[in-house]
Amino acid sequence: MGDNILPSALRIWEHCEALARCSEQEQRAASDLVLGWMRDAGMTAKLDEIGNCVGRYEGDRPGSPCLVLGSHLDTVRDAGKYDGMLGVVAAIECVHALNKQGKRLPFAIEVLGFADEEGVRFGCTLLGSRAVAGTFDPTLLEKIDHEDVSMRQALTDFGLDPAQISCAAHKRDDVLAYAELHIEQGPVLEAEGLSVGVVTAINGANRFLIEIDGMAGHAGTVPMNLRQDALAAAAECVLAIERRCASVPDLVGTVGELETLPGATNVIPGKVLFTLDIRSPRDAERLAAVADVEQAMQAICTRRKVALKINPTHEGKTAACAPWLMEQIGQAIAAQRLPVRELSSGAGHDGMALVDLTDIGMLFVRCKGGISHNPAEAITLEDVDTSARVFLRFIENFRPLNARS
Amino acid sequence: MGDNILPSALRIWEHCEALARCSEQEQRAASDLVLGWMRDAGMTAKLDEIGNCVGRYEGDRPGSPCLVLGSHLDTVRDAGKYDGMLGVVAAIECVHALNKQGKRLPFAIEVLGFADEEGVRFGCTLLGSRAVAGTFDPTLLEKIDHEDVSMRQALTDFGLDPAQISCAAHKRDDVLAYAELHIEQGPVLEAEGLSVGVVTAINGANRFLIEIDGMAGHAGTVPMNLRQDALAAAAECVLAIERRCASVPDLVGTVGELETLPGATNVIPGKVLFTLDIRSPRDAERLAAVADVEQAMQAICTRRKVALKINPTHEGKTAACAPWLMEQIGQAIAAQRLPVRELSSGAGHDGMALVDLTDIGMLFVRCKGGISHNPAEAITLEDVDTSARVFLRFIENFRPLNARS
Repeated sequence: MGDNILPSALRIWEHCEALARCSEQEQRAASDLVLGWMRDAGMTAKLDEIGNCVGRYEGDRPGSPCLVLGSHLDTVRDAGKYDGMLGVVAAIECVHALNKQGKRLPFAIEVLGFADEEGVRFGCTLLGSRAVAGTFDPTLLEKIDHEDVSMRQALTDFGLDPAQISCAAHKRDDVLAYAELHIEQGPVLEAEGLSVGVVTAINGANRFLIEIDGMAGHAGTVPMNLRQDALAAAAECVLAIERRCASVPDLVGTVGELETLPGATNVIPGKVLFTLDIRSPRDAERLAAVADVEQAMQAICTRRKVALKINPTHEGKTAACAPWLMEQIGQAIAAQRLPVRELSSGAGHDGMALVDLTDIGMLFVRCKGGISHNPAEAITLEDVDTSARVFLRFIENFRPLNARS
Repeated sequence: MGDNILPSALRIWEHCEALARCSEQEQRAASDLVLGWMRDAGMTAKLDEIGNCVGRYEGDRPGSPCLVLGSHLDTVRDAGKYDGMLGVVAAIECVHALNKQGKRLPFAIEVLGFADEEGVRFGCTLLGSRAVAGTFDPTLLEKIDHEDVSMRQALTDFGLDPAQISCAAHKRDDVLAYAELHIEQGPVLEAEGLSVGVVTAINGANRFLIEIDGMAGHAGTVPMNLRQDALAAAAECVLAIERRCASVPDLVGTVGELETLPGATNVIPGKVLFTLDIRSPRDAERLAAVADVEQAMQAICTRRKVALKINPTHEGKTAACAPWLMEQIGQAIAAQRLPVRELSSGAGHDGMALVDLTDIGMLFVRCKGGISHNPAEAITLEDVDTSARVFLRFIENFRPLNARS
């Protein structure tokens, strides 16, 4: 026993590689790996009723309220090795280091590997973390995947009992806070030469499907002044969105997909469909941008005599990180003699569900080129080491909110 | 016999309906209909070596040089009833009216129904008219369709001998001029309340496939100022093309198809592909526009730090209509107490091939909403009547170029 046992960056690295070798179909194999590592780290470990991996490391008094650490184990198709997995594996490694020292803290630690954050299969996200937060919507069990298998059937096939999902919910009094380590999935830390950062909020988002109806016509015969070109109108909208969203720090607006119809070299586009995604760490700024963008698009389409339909497809509010957790994460970073950079998360995370149960905090780790949801997702071993040291420091020095006041 | 027999608009209408009932696969049935109508109109009729329908109405002296009238009998998929067909059927009907009067002119008339102007099956246009002009490229015989059938095989299966295609070529001395009646396929005549117009030129065209390579990224995490959004760059290009082409009368520029990659709501487009089609009745203006647009797109992409590739896919020069034919067509319109509106053709026509053989002229007929290449293609019976009267007047009063000087 000693005070100098640190998390092993190499083991974190190797565990991420091992999980990456499990294909999308091998959720069972990935879960078994994670449960095994949890046990090796001195935790009791089990699958909960929705398939989350749950490991528990008791505090100095058994049955104490717990600090929940975690992230998700599923990922998107064609994904990288770190989105989600790194947070689960690093949390286990931190407990491993505590356990090696025989160190018990004045609170328990639970490490959760969430089962379905990305929502690829059934098109609905945060399933595992919502079950833990007690906000799982049982009507989702009837959702079907591309092969007509219902979520209810899929859970049953996996050996779970969908009727018991509510048992995965944690009690508020049993949980002190939720903290997650995750790759940034953006370029900010890299651009500033920083290994880690403190997340201030998980940004709220609005998504829309926009339809512009103009008039198709022969590309050679319709004079420019008689056209109602749906693509030219959409192009103006794209630039109006870009301009409005670039005018406020932290606000982002993206047209990710655009389709021209009928879509031929020699036909003026009669219809264009495009997606719009607007996010901000501040709900008021997001809603103001949405209103301005809607107004700008309407003005463009009215002037161009084309019809505009704005169909909302998603709205999610900002999930703010708790200032007291941000402060403690910041102190752990400062203890490594690193600058404390606060930044918001443009990507969604399990904290968006956990915030209904407890206060949330997040530690971001630099990733290469801001690239995620892509096999090119990359981090450095050095950053793994730094972030794991910071995370362990945060855990060791964690003081619950009531203990602070 | 008398002087007052006019073309029957109703018969033209019914013949267009009859051809429209022949499906794409029934080229033989359509040809048989046309050859039958030619014979009913007093012409000798045959299929030539590439499958064009050729009808000949001798002049007052057998074997005289001929005025060639015609258009194409094939069409695009999901097409209308008038594009091409109307011109063939109306020409036959004009000969029918001459024949009913027992009227022979001081020149022969040949009516040609061209076999493959649109080029849907083999991806190359003007096959029938190029064969007549003597510019058919025999290497095209090796082109294959979607079912791996070569053009050579398709012609053989149809009962033709590909080795004899050169026999379809007309001799320069045997041809006085080429005149075609065709729907406008644009909105100009309709916008001005005119039934018919005189074509000044078949516009030249450049086509390109443009590729913009930026950097894909997470729509939530990449700040606006760190983006290399390929779609935002493409949107600026679309507007630059529109602005440049709207600055000159008769010049048109169209982005008909645009694709975003990877194409997801939550991913900044890393790549955009789009088509560009620029046309003008004046080659110098077209080439100047192409150069300016290329320069503008390059400036946009350089400023936005995205890569631009401009791949030319087609270039065709303007085919000017002969002033002396424009004058005679205009006189025939004026004789109907109608205003003589001259306009260029943005769409391509068989005249682009025939111009290598002889002087060309075209009479445009108003169509509804400028819509073509679409089942909604529509004309009025009244305009059919007006245009056929004009066309017959032109034919009856036709004076060859050497006869004028």
